[in-house]
This record gives sequence, structure tokens and C-alpha cells, in this order.
Amino acid sequence: MTVESYATGLRCIECGATYPLAYRLECDKCPGLLELTYDLDELGRRGPAVFDGPGLWRYGAVLPIARPEHRVTLGEGQSPLLDCPRLATLLGVKRLLIKFDGSNPTGTVKDRSSTTAVAAALQFGYRVTSVVSSGNAGSSIAAYSTRAGLRSLIFVYERASAPKMLHIGAAATDLIIYKGVYDDLIGHWDRLVEEKAFFDCGASRNAFKQEGKKTLAYEIWEQNGFRAPDVIVAPVAVGETFIATSRGFRELAQLGWIDKAPLMVAAQATRANAISRAWRDGAPLKPLKIGYTVAEGLASGNPGKKGEWTLRLLRQNGGIAGDAEDEEILEAQKILARTEGIWAGPTGVATLAVLGRLLAKKQVDPARTICVIISETGLKTEAEVPSRQGTAFDYDSLRALVHSRLAQ
Amino acid sequence: MTVESYATGLRCIECGATYPLAYRLECDKCPGLLELTYDLDELGRRGPAVFDGPGLWRYGAVLPIARPEHRVTLGEGQSPLLDCPRLATLLGVKRLLIKFDGSNPTGTVKDRSSTTAVAAALQFGYRVTSVVSSGNAGSSIAAYSTRAGLRSLIFVYERASAPKMLHIGAAATDLIIYKGVYDDLIGHWDRLVEEKAFFDCGASRNAFKQEGKKTLAYEIWEQNGFRAPDVIVAPVAVGETFIATSRGFRELAQLGWIDKAPLMVAAQATRANAISRAWRDGAPLKPLKIGYTVAEGLASGNPGKKGEWTLRLLRQNGGIAGDAEDEEILEAQKILARTEGIWAGPTGVATLAVLGRLLAKKQVDPARTICVIISETGLKTEAEVPSRQGTAFDYDSLRALVHSRLAQ
Repeated sequence: MTVESYATGLRCIECGATYPLAYRLECDKCPGLLELTYDLDELGRRGPAVFDGPGLWRYGAVLPIARPEHRVTLGEGQSPLLDCPRLATLLGVKRLLIKFDGSNPTGTVKDRSSTTAVAAALQFGYRVTSVVSSGNAGSSIAAYSTRAGLRSLIFVYERASAPKMLHIGAAATDLIIYKGVYDDLIGHWDRLVEEKAFFDCGASRNAFKQEGKKTLAYEIWEQNGFRAPDVIVAPVAVGETFIATSRGFRELAQLGWIDKAPLMVAAQATRANAISRAWRDGAPLKPLKIGYTVAEGLASGNPGKKGEWTLRLLRQNGGIAGDAEDEEILEAQKILARTEGIWAGPTGVATLAVLGRLLAKKQVDPARTICVIISETGLKTEAEVPSRQGTAFDYDSLRALVHSRLAQ
Repeated sequence: MTVESYATGLRCIECGATYPLAYRLECDKCPGLLELTYDLDELGRRGPAVFDGPGLWRYGAVLPIARPEHRVTLGEGQSPLLDCPRLATLLGVKRLLIKFDGSNPTGTVKDRSSTTAVAAALQFGYRVTSVVSSGNAGSSIAAYSTRAGLRSLIFVYERASAPKMLHIGAAATDLIIYKGVYDDLIGHWDRLVEEKAFFDCGASRNAFKQEGKKTLAYEIWEQNGFRAPDVIVAPVAVGETFIATSRGFRELAQLGWIDKAPLMVAAQATRANAISRAWRDGAPLKPLKIGYTVAEGLASGNPGKKGEWTLRLLRQNGGIAGDAEDEEILEAQKILARTEGIWAGPTGVATLAVLGRLLAKKQVDPARTICVIISETGLKTEAEVPSRQGTAFDYDSLRALVHSRLAQ
């Protein structure tokens, strides 16, 4: 059974102007960013039983793609929500939930937005997609475009990890390596979007793309027994995941299906902390010149309008922002693997590192149920491999080794 | 709600001797391998509605772990079953389904057996697990052991890919690199299993481990609208996935929930084709001295008793075996990425390469619904990365490039 979409149109987040459901990136009048609107009154009356089927499209009612033949899928969504008692003890928190989005088809949360972005490209009759990426978005958009039979022009940063490069090379119709900083190219590329050279699969403006990530909120709610956790820690580059997840929980509150939306924590890498810094200083958002951070997917120095939107949500709703140094992020990666067996990449685990910092500074209450979004599998990590110095064993040497290890 | 287990005991596949539910690797009498038994009459009366909840433990009724606190999980199972019309057209088959098990927590089908292996270790009071692995099983057993709070001694082949090494290094309590061939070490290691130095998490004998992979059959059946596809193509190293999947479908037939079990195809790498060769020649299974194959997880030259079991199932039930050369496997990896956007590793995609061969030789009927199990994500692949020669763009050069690409 196809779940019917309750989408009604687009609304400017600045001036409130409304538009019918069409491919439009900014408001004509102000020019603010747009968000999707839904008939939540009707949906609220129907109740959560409208959600049906597997994966992300289970939540098709709150996604802007009506026709089943546009709902491209690689099996994204319904990622595990894992209770992590060992890690909770280590961090001194009451209950810790990990939302592990590394299990998506291309190993990242990006698959949630890629599926709705490419579905929207189909819906609006486009044949070519494009994105400028540090790696994850590139492979994800390429994979979904291919799945939909569309052409993809993927611009990837030359320092993207080897597993990401290899993946994009396999899935994209056109892989173009660029030299320089993400933010610089985005400006030029945005002009080509205006000229309709391709469908915008970037994170900065397309409301249809962003919307897919909203399903994080619906899934966490449903997997947690139709309750919202008290705190959600979400990764922030320009803010797409943060905004979409906040929006999902706000909708759930409007639908009357939760009492109140959770406290939202925005997690950045210290080396790309424009939003966290502005939040902390109570200052306007100021673009940063940034270098490399191990959290490749968070390397945005100029989060632009979406960064402003994130900051506004943080301030309006009493959210919290924080950031973590690369060393802390790599340490969090090890801790998560060693305590719970969860293997996440640096981009994915920055949230956990930030939570650690905020707990130390007593900015987050450890007596709450805290849900940390881990956005990326560890399998995309490029790092020094353990020594490959092998030993050949006969039975006696093997036995001696095993017993000496177990005696430790 | 915890799904109740219907497991009743163990039975020798050779002499039929039965045993109560305990940790036992071989029959005392003959010494054949053991398989688990269930009260299928009672389960058949209850009907499929006993299956409940997310992931692999949804099928707890047909798994041998009774107590919820032993059912360790990282969110494995419920991997996508994807209809692939583009690839079907390319191969000239009526309907092609890909069961993409790369979306499991550690990126492989092994997570299905790791969860039941480690759950059994808990159930039988063991504190240490161990496995000899080409990479995938090692990271998977390490991850699940850590998740369960157990110690893991992981023996990994020195040529395992970098992403696999890195992953195991992070998750295992003890990573030991060995030099030499998988099969050689297994013999010594088996003796340590007999001495109960650790819980056997290998693929060759432990029925509790193998059982987890049976869920592949139940999932495919349920995702395919409670129908079995006509043909299943399963990867074969020693045969664990093949045997377990065959068994799952046989149970479904015994339960009366499908009319008949699908035709099973056993897929090997030509460089490790002991079973496929014996099947083709109508000859007994003969161990091979093997070298490296890109399908690392299929590199077994001596499949032992489980290989014999696989061969017997093939012969008894009219199954088919085939193998593919490394070049064909790497070509299948590209084709799957380019046609459907699915990124699988060489180990995972050998099944597809073998299907291609069998279709060419008219050994598989293209007018059937064929389901290919893809056992591994592409993110573990170590291969040459596309050139990282980057270009810096200004608006004009970017525009020129995009238009020249789109003109092609």
C-alpha cells in the first residue's frame, strides 16, 4: 500500500508567503528559504496508523512526493535505535540511545535526503542532478540518481577519503574532482542551479531534499515506543539534519502525538564551528575560513541562510550548540567501537564527542534520555591500518599465544 | 514483545541422533554436524503473526535463543529487498531481486550469524569468543562480542582489506594477524575450540551461529509478499549462508507457508571453487590449494564437512552450482553500481557474476523471479582510487565544463 502524501505547498520561513507544491528554492518576495507545509489537521485526525510499510517511505504522509513511481528507493531508513547501557555508564548519563544512520544504503544519513531529492527531480521532470560534496553526499546522490535512471554531475573535494572516492567513481555518471574549499565552489555552482543546468541536490536550499531527513524524528519517536527522547544531539554542517529533525519533532507535537519537542543540541567540529561560536557568543553568524577537519562532512565554514535558520531555531527553542576538536572526535570513534561495538566515521561521531564536552561543562542534564544521531558508518574512514606483520602458527604456538592473551 | 523461541534441540544431519539444546558442535556417535530443530507443528498452527518487531529478532521463533537478555543486537537484519528492473533488462531476466545485506551494522551478512553466535555464547555462559577470518567475520564477531561485553580473539589474514583491518582493530579486544592460508590455521584453532579455550564463532561447525543466517529466507519471503522467489543465488565459501537459507525455505514449506522451496544456486569464486567443481564433475569434494581471490570472503579451499553438506543439498534438491573469475566479479561490481546504484564489495557481488555466467550457459531460466543475495557493502573494498587531480573553478570554467559534459 502506498502511503498518501499530505503535502500542501511551500512557505517562506522569513515572510510567510506561500506557494503551491513546485520546484522553487527561495521566496520570490524576500528571498527567504522555503519549507514544506502539510495538512497536519487531517493527518492528526487519521492518526499514526497511516504510516505503513518498510523504510523511509513508511512516512510518505509527511513527505512531498505523491506518486509511487517517483519514490526512488535503495532501502534507506529504519536505521537502528540502540540502547547503549555501557556507554551511558561511561558518560554518567541515565539512558543513552544511538541512532545509527551508518546502516543506510550508502552508509550515511545523506541517503534520507538523497531519496527525496532524486524523487523530487523525477517529480519535476529533471534528467540531471548535481551536488558539491566532501564525499558522503556525492556518493549518495550518485547512487540514487543512477537508481532512478538520471545523470549525475558530482563535484568532490580532492581530499575526500579513498572509500568515498572509489564509491562515487563507481556510481556517478560524471565525477569531477575540485581543488579548494567547499564553500567557494558552492557560490559558482548555485548560479548554474539558477540557470537550471541541473536539479539542485545541495544542502543549502532545496526543501525537497532536506525533507527526507525529517524521517529521523518520526523513526526515533516510533522506535522509542511513540515517545520523544528528552534530548537529541544532531550533527551540523550547514544545518540540514538539525533543521529537518527539529521540524519532524515540531510536527509530532503539532499532530498531538508527543507532549513536547525534545531539547535539540547542534554538534559541530571545532575546526568548522561558525554556528556553535555564534550561539555561544550571542553574536550574528560570521563565515569562517576553514581548513581540514577529520569530520569531513561537517567542513562548512559558511553555512549561509541555512546556518542562520539553525541559529534561529537554537535561540527560539532554547537549544544548545557545541563543538569538538578533531582529537576528541577520533577518541569518541574509538570509545563507541570499544564500548558498544558500533563503528562510526569521524563525521558521524562528532555528535558523541560534543555530548561528552557538554556533559563535562554541565550544559546537558545527565538524568535525561539522550539520543545521539550517528550519521556515518566507520567503513568510509581512511586512517592508518594496524600493522600487517603476520605470524604463521602451528598448533603449539597458537595455543601458547591464546593462553598468554587470556591470562592478561 | 519478545518473540518466543520454538527451538527444541539439535539433530545430527548424518545419523539423525537428537540432543537437547546445548553447546555441542558435532554428533557424539558418528560424528556428523548438527542442526537445530523446532516445534514447527505448533508454530505452523500459530501462523506468521508470531513474528513481531524490527530486525532479525523478529524471527526469534525460529532461532535458538530463548531469553531476551541474550539476544544481543546492533540492529541487524531487515536488509532491503530491491526490485531491479534495469539490471533485469540488462541480464534478460523477467524479474530480478537484490537482497542487499551490505546494510547490516558491519556491512555484511555475517552480522546475522554473529548475533546468534554471540547470543549463544551468552546463553551458554562463555566470556570469550574467537574466529579465524578473512576480514568480514572478524569485524562482525568483534563488534557483537563488544556489544555483549565479551572478550574477542580475532585472527585475521594479513591481506584483509584496509577498511576491514581498521574496523577490527577498533572493535576487537585482541586482533592477531596471521600469515598463511585460512584453512591451515582453522585446523589448529579447532583443537583450541575442543579444549574450550573460547566459544567457537567460526563458520564450520557451530549450529547456533549458522542459524542466524536462516532469517535471510524468512525476510525474503515476507518482503516478497509472503511468497518465495523461484530462484535464490547464495554465496558459498564453506556453505553457511547457502545451507542456512536453504533450511529457512525448507522450514517455510514444512510450515505450509510456501508451496515449494526455491531453486538454490551456490555461487563461488573460480579461484576457490571446490564445491562448484565437485558438483559439475559429479565427483566427491576435494580440497584445493588456493591463492588470493578478490572475493576475500569466499576464499576457502577446504570447505570440509559443511562443504559436503552444501554439495548434498545441491544434489538432493536439484540445485545448481557455479563460479566466476575475479575479472567477472569486478565487472559485476561495476555493473551493479552503474545500473542500480548499489555499491557492493567483490565478496558480495560474486553471486551476481555467477548468475551472469549461468544465464549465458542457459543453466538458469530467465523467465523466473530470481533473487540474488549480495552479502557485503562496497565500502570495504580496497582498490585503486580515481585520480585525485583536482581543478579549481571560477564561474566561467565551471559553466564551460558542465555544458561540455552535458553535451556528450
